[in-house]
Amino acid sequence: MEKAKAELRQLGKKIEIQTSKKQNPTLIFPLRGLSNIEFDKKSSTLKLGDKTASRSFFNVAHSKKFLQTLDAARISHNLLKEKKHASLRDVFYQMKRTITGTKTNIVDDQTESDAVIEDLELITGCSREQLNINANKNGSVAGNVIVEDKGDIIDWSKMGSGGWSIPSNVEEIKFKKVQAKYVLYMEKAAVWERLHEDKFWEKQNCLIMSSQGQTTRGVRRLLQRLYEEHKLPIYVLTDLDPWGFYIYSVIKYGSISLAHMSEQLTIPGVKFLGITVDDIKKYNLEPNLIKFKDVDIKRIDQIKDYDWFKDNKDWQRQLNELKKLKAKAEIQALSARGISFISEKYLPEKIKNKEFID
Amino acid sequence: MEKAKAELRQLGKKIEIQTSKKQNPTLIFPLRGLSNIEFDKKSSTLKLGDKTASRSFFNVAHSKKFLQTLDAARISHNLLKEKKHASLRDVFYQMKRTITGTKTNIVDDQTESDAVIEDLELITGCSREQLNINANKNGSVAGNVIVEDKGDIIDWSKMGSGGWSIPSNVEEIKFKKVQAKYVLYMEKAAVWERLHEDKFWEKQNCLIMSSQGQTTRGVRRLLQRLYEEHKLPIYVLTDLDPWGFYIYSVIKYGSISLAHMSEQLTIPGVKFLGITVDDIKKYNLEPNLIKFKDVDIKRIDQIKDYDWFKDNKDWQRQLNELKKLKAKAEIQALSARGISFISEKYLPEKIKNKEFID
Repeated sequence: MEKAKAELRQLGKKIEIQTSKKQNPTLIFPLRGLSNIEFDKKSSTLKLGDKTASRSFFNVAHSKKFLQTLDAARISHNLLKEKKHASLRDVFYQMKRTITGTKTNIVDDQTESDAVIEDLELITGCSREQLNINANKNGSVAGNVIVEDKGDIIDWSKMGSGGWSIPSNVEEIKFKKVQAKYVLYMEKAAVWERLHEDKFWEKQNCLIMSSQGQTTRGVRRLLQRLYEEHKLPIYVLTDLDPWGFYIYSVIKYGSISLAHMSEQLTIPGVKFLGITVDDIKKYNLEPNLIKFKDVDIKRIDQIKDYDWFKDNKDWQRQLNELKKLKAKAEIQALSARGISFISEKYLPEKIKNKEFID
Repeated sequence: MEKAKAELRQLGKKIEIQTSKKQNPTLIFPLRGLSNIEFDKKSSTLKLGDKTASRSFFNVAHSKKFLQTLDAARISHNLLKEKKHASLRDVFYQMKRTITGTKTNIVDDQTESDAVIEDLELITGCSREQLNINANKNGSVAGNVIVEDKGDIIDWSKMGSGGWSIPSNVEEIKFKKVQAKYVLYMEKAAVWERLHEDKFWEKQNCLIMSSQGQTTRGVRRLLQRLYEEHKLPIYVLTDLDPWGFYIYSVIKYGSISLAHMSEQLTIPGVKFLGITVDDIKKYNLEPNLIKFKDVDIKRIDQIKDYDWFKDNKDWQRQLNELKKLKAKAEIQALSARGISFISEKYLPEKIKNKEFID
């Protein structure tokens, strides 16, 4: 928090100096967007390239964005001073007002405020969470872990059937005790409830974590902290379809829209433990496949071509076979073999035999 | 659980008797769907009417559905015996298989299994949750409450910034301590985090609860249990738009698709504490309105015509004014007045002055 405050003050100072010298106030920062994104093979993450963008006050094409950026910086600085957090939507409303003497609003749409907040991440080198701006929370966790959060001591092994609700911002959580061999992250809340009821985390001495659909930033950051600070392997359990593969790859390599945050969010060591094309025969899942739609097939072709899948033989095989299969297998398809098949046989067997895809 | 098991066994017994007498095995139960739904003014809930449907095995139009219904009953009975819970998706996969000697599947699509599970609720008089079948979980809660769930003692006041993650099935939760004057339920997780950070529940001696978008059944049932077993007033905080009003009305009166579950899910005493058309002027929210799309306007007309809104002057006025306004006001629009305006001024003032809509 002190770092973020200092960075924002430095930004203000810089503008102040430029104006006092009668220079055109200008911000320079790495260019975002596809044209400046590269897959860094060394670190195995999506990163921003060397191209920069500049934004000047006395430039008709820039001045509104310049103003928006400074307004976002002001709002974030206030939040940090008051020790409060706002959602992206809150920040949008705090920015949405008419510039005095004009008919122009500072922002009209949340996409505008979201964009300058991402710019602010680049300018300050602080994540949105460190700037006290949060996205939606979504996700649960259970296992032998004790954390301290806002003065409360929370034991993830004693949260009943609900589990602990993962906050949108996990920066200030302190780990008091972490007793687990690995973390199993799954894309579906219903699968989490299944494994929790079967006491999977207790039997396997692991942590189970889920959000719903795309992984929220709070969940990604929590996974990363467990990986880096506690050296826990992270396994990702998804459906067998291009969307599931992408969920895995975002956790591992980062995403195009958040390439500038790769360092703080990606987990290069994460392994895929989801349904594979080989599981179909092995576990007799053929009767439980769901036919692909056109959009699924198109998505396979897109994903096949991504740098991080392109040079990977295992993934190319999975994707090619999946394309021939023309159907997806959901995690819950395993229920057809028995409601606890997943926790008693499928997962223990795959983990024991190290049947991961990397 | 014993009730559900007994009801399912009785269903099996009935079919057994019919077959042993060489009768056509037949199930009779209330007809679902719009044609048999009425708004019961006395109890203020949406209920099913007197029309019944029958389903016979030796009837070409019925036999598949008959089989599906019995298969769902079998799966639920197994779950109850094994003391396990399945998601709707799990049940779909357990039902999805080819009938021996044919090319016909028992179900091809989840809508089919979902439908017969709802029928099973009607036939047995037990909710899906009592039949050990859950939907997705989604939602958080905080406040001065201690519950026991699956042997764990959970203190909702000591859950850090995340809160307790509300399970999809809250039937077996035991309340150990409930210390609160009311429950504030909101449609948005981000607003919940705002109020939680401001310690709203502590200052106001209340509980705060949220899901995201439409209220999940787990959350509705938890609200209802707090209302009935602990006589807590329930206030609903939503956006000012037809979708927000509908979220409120579903909690209060029930929904068309779950009319047969009204008794177990509706809370007639619930009050609307969301943004009203009167708040726009009072709190100077005009600059923060978002223009309606056509679909929003159409939805207002639909809602105006629902029985439970039609005869209610207050709601008709809100809906008429909203139609003139042609714009919505989100809860987070209040952030424009200051990030904690909602918890320090807006809500305390409205609650103190009892500015509810009923």
